[in-house]
Amino acid sequence: MKIINYTSVAPTHFDNDQAKSVAGGVVIGKDDGANNFCMRVFEVAPGGHTPKHTHAWEHEIFFHAGEGEVYGNGKLNPVVPGTVLFVPPNEEHQIRNTGKELLIFACLIPSSAPEL
Amino acid sequence: MKIINYTSVAPTHFDNDQAKSVAGGVVIGKDDGANNFCMRVFEVAPGGHTPKHTHAWEHEIFFHAGEGEVYGNGKLNPVVPGTVLFVPPNEEHQIRNTGKELLIFACLIPSSAPEL
Repeated sequence: MKIINYTSVAPTHFDNDQAKSVAGGVVIGKDDGANNFCMRVFEVAPGGHTPKHTHAWEHEIFFHAGEGEVYGNGKLNPVVPGTVLFVPPNEEHQIRNTGKELLIFACLIPSSAPEL
Repeated sequence: MKIINYTSVAPTHFDNDQAKSVAGGVVIGKDDGANNFCMRVFEVAPGGHTPKHTHAWEHEIFFHAGEGEVYGNGKLNPVVPGTVLFVPPNEEHQIRNTGKELLIFACLIPSSAPEL
């Protein structure tokens, strides 16, 4: 088995025209022998956000820490630690940090998707 | 999309000769259209533990709260909030709460496995 703290994985930083103040890394993936689905952990800094986008694969997300909102179903929905989010394939979504601390979540995707 | 707090799912309780003081439920599954993998969230009470067992499917686990240890690789390994655990198929494992608060974790499995 593999046991790590997610913070031991050097994150990739995303700051561009679509994402702001997002850092994340693959914590369980194909390199570990995980052939069916992949876990990434992301930290979004206060004021930051993920892209508002769609793609052909689903997300299964568990919010670990911080406060934010997710765009989906045509509105902004609050998220807190313990919130669970399922984004089906091809559904527009965006996650925003509206709090004062890091917004931290595990986001899992099927093996058919790019890992990061 | 589906957005819930994991606590809104009525848990199934496991107290038998193998599991002690474990409660958990499916938060994202086939009923939601999640066809590739399934998210369950478990709470283990202080002194409680999951079964020491093996099965043919993998686990991808994110520890959200509490303190505990996982049996694997022939020893007991500490887990804290932010610990990530990958248990490959057919590898013996057990999760124990060694702290004074609930040990809470999201545990994901492939769609080939029973959801709970």
